[in-house]
Amino acid sequence: MGLIGSSISRALVESHVTNRVYGLDSDDKIIKKCQDLNLLVQGETNLTNFEQQFDLIIICTPLSSYKNIFSSLSGFISQPTLITDVGSTKMSTISDFKNAVTNKNMTFVPSHPIAGLEKSGPEYGFSKLFDNRYCILTPHDTNDAATSSISEMWKSIGMTVEIMDADRHDRVLAMTSHIPQLIAFSVVGTATELESHMRDEVIKYSAAGFRDFTRLAGSDPIMWRDVYNKNKDAVLEMLGRFSEDLSTYQKAIRNGDLEFLENKFNQSKKVRKEIEDIGQAGSFDPTEKKN
Amino acid sequence: MGLIGSSISRALVESHVTNRVYGLDSDDKIIKKCQDLNLLVQGETNLTNFEQQFDLIIICTPLSSYKNIFSSLSGFISQPTLITDVGSTKMSTISDFKNAVTNKNMTFVPSHPIAGLEKSGPEYGFSKLFDNRYCILTPHDTNDAATSSISEMWKSIGMTVEIMDADRHDRVLAMTSHIPQLIAFSVVGTATELESHMRDEVIKYSAAGFRDFTRLAGSDPIMWRDVYNKNKDAVLEMLGRFSEDLSTYQKAIRNGDLEFLENKFNQSKKVRKEIEDIGQAGSFDPTEKKN
Repeated sequence: MGLIGSSISRALVESHVTNRVYGLDSDDKIIKKCQDLNLLVQGETNLTNFEQQFDLIIICTPLSSYKNIFSSLSGFISQPTLITDVGSTKMSTISDFKNAVTNKNMTFVPSHPIAGLEKSGPEYGFSKLFDNRYCILTPHDTNDAATSSISEMWKSIGMTVEIMDADRHDRVLAMTSHIPQLIAFSVVGTATELESHMRDEVIKYSAAGFRDFTRLAGSDPIMWRDVYNKNKDAVLEMLGRFSEDLSTYQKAIRNGDLEFLENKFNQSKKVRKEIEDIGQAGSFDPTEKKN
Repeated sequence: MGLIGSSISRALVESHVTNRVYGLDSDDKIIKKCQDLNLLVQGETNLTNFEQQFDLIIICTPLSSYKNIFSSLSGFISQPTLITDVGSTKMSTISDFKNAVTNKNMTFVPSHPIAGLEKSGPEYGFSKLFDNRYCILTPHDTNDAATSSISEMWKSIGMTVEIMDADRHDRVLAMTSHIPQLIAFSVVGTATELESHMRDEVIKYSAAGFRDFTRLAGSDPIMWRDVYNKNKDAVLEMLGRFSEDLSTYQKAIRNGDLEFLENKFNQSKKVRKEIEDIGQAGSFDPTEKKN
């Protein structure tokens, strides 16, 4: 019931898909917050406290908890139940499901809604988070009815659904998400390890570009730690490509090859334009929001 | 008279510092746009077309043009004139001034307002761009009256002024600006050099983090090319540090050292918090602005 879980909860209610969302979170303070925000019919910190069964279960947790969650669900579920998730890697998710679950009532359609924010916690969630964003499904068996139901659910909250192989998903997301995020953490790390007076200045003058990296680096550490553990191969491959490319820029700077730099920068500028044109750029305001 | 020049022009008029801004741009289409936007008393594409002298001249051009601009001004100026600039490197700026100028009427106080946006052109400028942002001055001689006048000018449009050695400025900005920008260009470059179907998917699913890098990478290529040429030493030093640090992350991922990753990510998250606390984070909205 963090940022994503609470946002889905809000979106499902607002779009009249359901008015009965039940929440499970290991942290009772989070459940309390959700109840204060009026997001839940019932909130629990333990699955076995629920006396009823559910139509749909959406897992919105760090990837390292999937195996235990699937096991618990496998013991709990006693009627046909659709299960989906929001995890950033899909090969590991499918393998965790297959290894932990024998319960034939459980039908799992892995999902990855490409939407988020660097904030954590239900108080930051909002229903429009998924509006006009893509959701990738990576079905691992041929239950078309289940895939179609999960697909409709995401569409009802404004998402465009795409079907992809789990393996391809993990490579694409390594590049669009896991590598940018890792580099953001790493740049921010480099800056903070400078001599302390310089560190202060880096923070002070962060509006010069650095702050864009810190926004990503403000994301949940546990969630990201798990991503790198679960998508190791694709991340290391893309990281290798990035390091090679960065070396060519380094060399061009050393040699004063201005033409190389200008050409590369022009190519990158075009990519930005394409992202703006398809409406996936988000909106950045360089001034502060007034509270 | 691009994004920065036009924004300064708007800000100076709005804050009643002057109602007489004259614009010089080598591109007559830009001057035409400024005139349509009613930003100028007079706009020219050639310095010698101006028949009057000026109190203050603000250079807002790529760094490679400074030498020529200083030479032209040296020939043009016939009465005591204050000169400042907005360039992202300051050692090179001072050295260009010293090498090109013998005219004793010219007093140059180098400035760097830490504010910007990835857009180029006067149509994107706005007066609030400098509000609540830092401006670093790196005076190279001891003309306190001139430094004080330039300082007051930036303060009048909402900036907080700091004085710094040019050499220190260039190292700090390498880390807060030039390196993040270079890495953003480089990550976007890596993504665009993937197989073409994968490239399309990277653009499509860019809301997963990649888009933050493309925002920076949407910046003016010539301006940035010049920055890397003029601040070579500091950029290469910081790039070396970054590459070393990134290798430690790579190794931790390969070895599954989750504790290392979690600790590092937590440190970075704290930096983000500090930047938000001092009001330098800007405002990001993950949804699209409705036009």
